Amino acid sequence: MKYVCDYTDELGSLGNRVGARARALAEMASLGFPVPPGFAISNVACRRFLETGDLPDEAWSEVTDAIEVAVAAFRRVGPPRPVLFSVRSSPAIDMPGLFNSALYLGATDSALEELAVWGGETLALHSRLGFLKSIGRLRGLSPVRYSSVVAEVAGVAARQDWSDAETAAVCDAYEALVVDESQRPIPGDLEGQLLEGVEAVFASWDGLEARRFRARRGVSDDDGMGVIVHPMILGDVGDSGAGVVFSRDPGDGNAAVTGSYSPGVSRPTSGVSETALDFLAAADSAAHEKLTAAVLTLERARQDMMRLDFVREQGKLWMIEARPAERTPEAAVRVAVDMVDEGLTTRETALRAVDPERLTGMLHPRLKSEPDRDAIAHGTATSPGAAAGKLVFSTVAAVAAAESGERAILVLREVLPRDLDGVVTAAGLITSHGGGTSHAAVAARAAGTPAVTGIADVIVTSDSVTFGGRVLTGQDSVTIDGGSGAVFAGMLEIDQPPAGSSLDRLLTWADEVRRLGVWANADTAHAALAARAAGADGIGLARSEYMFQGERLEVVRRILLSEEGRERDDALEILESMQVEDFEHLLEAMDGTPVVVRLLDPPVHEFLPSRLDVEQQIAARLGAGEGVEDLELLDAAIEQWSEVNPMLGLRGVRLAVVIPEIYRVQVLAALEAVRRRLDAGGDPRLEIMIPLVSSVEELHLVRDMIEEEVHSAGRLLEVAIGTMIELPRAALLAGELALESDFFSFGTNDLTQTTLGISRDDAEEAFLRSYVEQGLMATNPFQRIDADGVGRLIEQAIAAGRDANPGLEIGVCGEHGGDPVSITHFHKWGVDYVSCSPPRIPIARLAAAQAALDEDSGRQL
Amino acid sequence: MKYVCDYTDELGSLGNRVGARARALAEMASLGFPVPPGFAISNVACRRFLETGDLPDEAWSEVTDAIEVAVAAFRRVGPPRPVLFSVRSSPAIDMPGLFNSALYLGATDSALEELAVWGGETLALHSRLGFLKSIGRLRGLSPVRYSSVVAEVAGVAARQDWSDAETAAVCDAYEALVVDESQRPIPGDLEGQLLEGVEAVFASWDGLEARRFRARRGVSDDDGMGVIVHPMILGDVGDSGAGVVFSRDPGDGNAAVTGSYSPGVSRPTSGVSETALDFLAAADSAAHEKLTAAVLTLERARQDMMRLDFVREQGKLWMIEARPAERTPEAAVRVAVDMVDEGLTTRETALRAVDPERLTGMLHPRLKSEPDRDAIAHGTATSPGAAAGKLVFSTVAAVAAAESGERAILVLREVLPRDLDGVVTAAGLITSHGGGTSHAAVAARAAGTPAVTGIADVIVTSDSVTFGGRVLTGQDSVTIDGGSGAVFAGMLEIDQPPAGSSLDRLLTWADEVRRLGVWANADTAHAALAARAAGADGIGLARSEYMFQGERLEVVRRILLSEEGRERDDALEILESMQVEDFEHLLEAMDGTPVVVRLLDPPVHEFLPSRLDVEQQIAARLGAGEGVEDLELLDAAIEQWSEVNPMLGLRGVRLAVVIPEIYRVQVLAALEAVRRRLDAGGDPRLEIMIPLVSSVEELHLVRDMIEEEVHSAGRLLEVAIGTMIELPRAALLAGELALESDFFSFGTNDLTQTTLGISRDDAEEAFLRSYVEQGLMATNPFQRIDADGVGRLIEQAIAAGRDANPGLEIGVCGEHGGDPVSITHFHKWGVDYVSCSPPRIPIARLAAAQAALDEDSGRQL
Repeated sequence: MKYVCDYTDELGSLGNRVGARARALAEMASLGFPVPPGFAISNVACRRFLETGDLPDEAWSEVTDAIEVAVAAFRRVGPPRPVLFSVRSSPAIDMPGLFNSALYLGATDSALEELAVWGGETLALHSRLGFLKSIGRLRGLSPVRYSSVVAEVAGVAARQDWSDAETAAVCDAYEALVVDESQRPIPGDLEGQLLEGVEAVFASWDGLEARRFRARRGVSDDDGMGVIVHPMILGDVGDSGAGVVFSRDPGDGNAAVTGSYSPGVSRPTSGVSETALDFLAAADSAAHEKLTAAVLTLERARQDMMRLDFVREQGKLWMIEARPAERTPEAAVRVAVDMVDEGLTTRETALRAVDPERLTGMLHPRLKSEPDRDAIAHGTATSPGAAAGKLVFSTVAAVAAAESGERAILVLREVLPRDLDGVVTAAGLITSHGGGTSHAAVAARAAGTPAVTGIADVIVTSDSVTFGGRVLTGQDSVTIDGGSGAVFAGMLEIDQPPAGSSLDRLLTWADEVRRLGVWANADTAHAALAARAAGADGIGLARSEYMFQGERLEVVRRILLSEEGRERDDALEILESMQVEDFEHLLEAMDGTPVVVRLLDPPVHEFLPSRLDVEQQIAARLGAGEGVEDLELLDAAIEQWSEVNPMLGLRGVRLAVVIPEIYRVQVLAALEAVRRRLDAGGDPRLEIMIPLVSSVEELHLVRDMIEEEVHSAGRLLEVAIGTMIELPRAALLAGELALESDFFSFGTNDLTQTTLGISRDDAEEAFLRSYVEQGLMATNPFQRIDADGVGRLIEQAIAAGRDANPGLEIGVCGEHGGDPVSITHFHKWGVDYVSCSPPRIPIARLAAAQAALDEDSGRQL
Repeated sequence: MKYVCDYTDELGSLGNRVGARARALAEMASLGFPVPPGFAISNVACRRFLETGDLPDEAWSEVTDAIEVAVAAFRRVGPPRPVLFSVRSSPAIDMPGLFNSALYLGATDSALEELAVWGGETLALHSRLGFLKSIGRLRGLSPVRYSSVVAEVAGVAARQDWSDAETAAVCDAYEALVVDESQRPIPGDLEGQLLEGVEAVFASWDGLEARRFRARRGVSDDDGMGVIVHPMILGDVGDSGAGVVFSRDPGDGNAAVTGSYSPGVSRPTSGVSETALDFLAAADSAAHEKLTAAVLTLERARQDMMRLDFVREQGKLWMIEARPAERTPEAAVRVAVDMVDEGLTTRETALRAVDPERLTGMLHPRLKSEPDRDAIAHGTATSPGAAAGKLVFSTVAAVAAAESGERAILVLREVLPRDLDGVVTAAGLITSHGGGTSHAAVAARAAGTPAVTGIADVIVTSDSVTFGGRVLTGQDSVTIDGGSGAVFAGMLEIDQPPAGSSLDRLLTWADEVRRLGVWANADTAHAALAARAAGADGIGLARSEYMFQGERLEVVRRILLSEEGRERDDALEILESMQVEDFEHLLEAMDGTPVVVRLLDPPVHEFLPSRLDVEQQIAARLGAGEGVEDLELLDAAIEQWSEVNPMLGLRGVRLAVVIPEIYRVQVLAALEAVRRRLDAGGDPRLEIMIPLVSSVEELHLVRDMIEEEVHSAGRLLEVAIGTMIELPRAALLAGELALESDFFSFGTNDLTQTTLGISRDDAEEAFLRSYVEQGLMATNPFQRIDADGVGRLIEQAIAAGRDANPGLEIGVCGEHGGDPVSITHFHKWGVDYVSCSPPRIPIARLAAAQAALDEDSGRQL
């Protein structure tokens, strides 16, 4: 046959066209497991249906033949009752919950009458109701409509068990509603009901959520899917029930069969609570043994932890579905490692088995249990982990709270460099502005501080925050979940991440396999130590400006605000001595591994207070009759340094042209730090990185300055000098720049901004979400590297750079360095290392290993 | 000889190494003209000197030999007096005024004594003074130091003629000063003086201004230059004088020998006013005839208008220099065209002879004469032309002034879309913010309004402007010179540009030669007519948002501020009907030629008032006890639409995703305009251009919408649909985009911003000037296309685009479309047309012709 095949027999030429669910049923049948007799329709029929709006006649005639075969087979092995059918989706890869399914098809008047005779009036009524609810769903009625029908039949909703009369009344009322709303009669024959069911399931391939899911996974919309059709097993008649077994514990990965069983579960009117599998073991130990053996057999066959769905009808066991089990991240890791220990799989299989992205879930604190209250606000889930504490509204208050041992949640409008102490010391962060790729997000992730950002309908003042209409002050506490973006009032209980010996082993295997270095973005000795503990091979990005906080900010301001002369020189000297210690501690923490220090990068105005603040202070002082000269000076400076598009403005290496002293001071400090580490017997491996370079001349200017200072240091200090490649022009001129560089580091955040012309600070809320929702973009390009556009530039630049300077070391230090899919690209493009925030290092190690494995198997093909 | 040659004899192997001045002297000698006997030193000697700080011994020995030869020769043909020498620079190409020269060398005590005997004490004293001034200049003394010496010798400065005693006193005092300041004695012998002179002239090759000049012209700093050395002819003894003749009038190009003559000009103590050549014709008609014949001979030999410098010493004529004459732009054009008519040169030579950039000077109104007052302010020379008028401080006032026939100068902080009416109607524009490539600049140039922008130290309020400390209000008038960036108080006289039949002919020749189309950036029918008159082949950029002014701005605001519903629909309908007329008039003005309409591009917030304004209004209303709900709504909307980096924000095609109605309305209006033009029997050639595209999906979205509307128009409307290439990603994906595009238009302004990561609004003042001054950039990349970076992207994109879609039409619509050097690149890269502001169309036509000629001669080589 061309479109249809009997899965209990063989899949024939349709093997790959009928989808995973059909193949699993065929596998179970071949192992002798009791599956209901049935058949599958191929995705070719689905595609034809989606193109033309009709199933091909030939397909339908094959279906009607197959139904006859299935009915006859069921009559042989099943109970002596009318056969009702289920139609379920069977896509090539598992896409849970995205598609329609149709149940109780064939519940015609005559079949229901026979069913009543065989199993009682109640069973027939429940089957009718199940059928009607299924048809209602297929025709797009919201579940709310059904609930209102139930509510109209007074008294029915509140009770668990209805009288047959009440069930009949609900059936009648809902049938009338379905017909009325859909303006179509309900087919009175099996064939008509099956046709509607099959078409509706096929049609659900095109649903919005399904299309989004496929876009995210890179599955083509043109594939279509198979469906399976088989007699329903009724779990609600007599000694019946339904359940699921897992080959291991999906919660923690423990190697013991587990599962649940619900007697009478398919009864549509009652919500029976699930019970553990022990109930079944006691009630029907034979079934329990069969299931245990079956799921372990499947696990061995598939080399993966399996889930098996079953139904018992009047004491007879039927297995209706088998698939790899969903599992928590911990379980995924433990199962993968255990299976290697048990000799079931190889390390390579284990490394491939775990989605790196899911490690996030096991690396951070999280809510102990489902929250007992509604969230008071939702924002972007920006930095993972849960945190609870009292509210503070400034960096000063956050630091004070941390010093007195209190856990505090810092609430800000946005994060500026001056707030970085606060972000580091606070237990959690909430901001009203900025999405998941804003500066706030980068800072929070770098610090490992859970954060929720970009909350709509929130007002932040200097001593309160208003969510919706609810005002909270420093007296109040909140709990945030940086994994979901939720904010809860009050303190919820929080679990620390589990200690992970399995994870450690898996990552050690990953390190043996991967060829891509994994370095960390870390700005402080504290972060560097955390990164090293997480397995970082070096520091790929130490943002020197993140060291300009608190009292240092004042020093930077004095440099910016004073004319050349004594005051400015003094300030520069203070800055230098401060930075010496910063760099010394960093180099000490990373002794023997490379530390890439980036010279000052952000626009100058980020070091100045906001203009609004200053003008408010001026107004206040004027009101009090005080002098305002100093503030007016500050105000003028802010005006002078303000820019329409600061991202494209006076920052990075451009500062070296306009205010050359700051870079010189930073270089002097870094060299002094190297000297001190050498004196202390250390092995400092300093690399100095120049940001925002777009021309050879710029690179030359700063490189000359650095070499001059190295030279006049009078002692052989080895310092690598490199440039960021974060502007398209730098990528285009990579060959020329490589001649003057010991290393390149792709700043993929800025390179994405400029290549796409999208501001990371604004775009997420302004239009990126609309783009992703409307399918104009597969993913946010700030989270996953834009391989077609930005990637093309990177590939060109790597080729030209290596060509000009074969010894060039090439890294990536944007946020993309921690994204598994991006890591695969970077590996392929020939990058030497990625650098990411410390919490993402385990993810990057695993992703790098997978990229290496993929490349190796690609080579073998 | 290796370093030196006698230019009156032959240049030998040194021909190309002795520079243009030496070669001109050799040419004159060969024609039998009376040149002083002398010699040239080659640039090889100069290079050796610059490298080592010393002249090679061999060179110096050749020089001393050559001096003897020159002295002997001068004794044969010159007057019987001591020989003094001049040393002058002779670079390969003319670099006027950049180098030192040394005069009166050999004015030793004994020579001066002999000179006194031969020509009198006064001549000797003047020669001594000339020598000392020359030495002072060579040793770097400022002319002010000489003036103070003169002032110290009481009474001397005020009078024209000094007594010999007074001259001697000045000499003594100045000699003492020179020795004291330079801490070096003055050589007492001819050879020492000559050595100092030659070395000082060579050293001046490395001067700052000279290096800048060479950087601009692309001349290598390593070239070095020759010098010429010859006996001075004394123009201040007896019947003597000096002058210059031109083969044509350098002011207007009239074909008649002209010039000037100053009797006794070299007398160093008096400023004798020059007289026309008639004086000489009367006094020495033989000399006059010789000069006339000589300069015409040179013109024929060089096929260029020539200038000839001469000196008469005691009735004997000496010619001392010949070079192509400086000329006004009008003269350049007229001479080039006349010479073709006279059969002297070809059209090709004429087309090559005129620097396109210089046409600017003859296309705009200009100050009638040198201003009689100092400028009160200087800014960026942003849009050429002079204008005078009373000050106005808002677009409303500018429009009112224009309506009442008054000429007004509009003063603004910056130009927003709402101000475009003002920029168009005002006689001139002044802004405190924005450089030569800001939005203000683009708007002013597009409108042909003279403009000075980015003035430092200026405060603009709503009814006054303060330059330095000087406050001007609506009662005051100013004159601006958009060619120099100067602002003058009061009304200066202004000349309109000359009618140019020669220019018209030259440009007609250019049109016959050029292969690059020249289109115009024009947003109104008025501008389109001007563009057509200037020779535009079409409109390459009609910015539809520039039509959203005055009352229309209100309509746009209503669309942005209202939720979906009736009010919004009404506003959209009004907008549509307004735009229909806009487009209809444009298409009518350009009937039969293409009109590229760009859909809405700028960030939304540009259509909203400034937040500061609204908050001030709120404060005022609250003070008056009035309601502020509407303003608070507006304030919230401004906050909603505000962006940190608007250039990288919600603009261009992104608007079509977030607010799709506006693009649809614009498309409907454009199609309706085409229909009306067809009904009126016209030949409308509409092309719709989508801005800021970075993905195929975006292009698809809008293209589908346009095609749908074209389709449902129910009549065959031919409309080309294309995309701007103004983001690096678009250039990288050009192959894919070309499949969906009828044309590409490179938006080189934005492409430069994103490729280099530089904001056009901020960069000029913030750092670009520093970059150009420090030699980190050769030119402002917003004025001249960055061929190495942006150009690489453009070339790649053109290749990929043409490869995918051979019929693709490719234009450039950034400001670079009017820059001659950029045009040469665009021609080379295979662009089909450039589009520029109407005033630059003649420049572009000529530049395009030169590019074609260069390519052709390159092919022949």
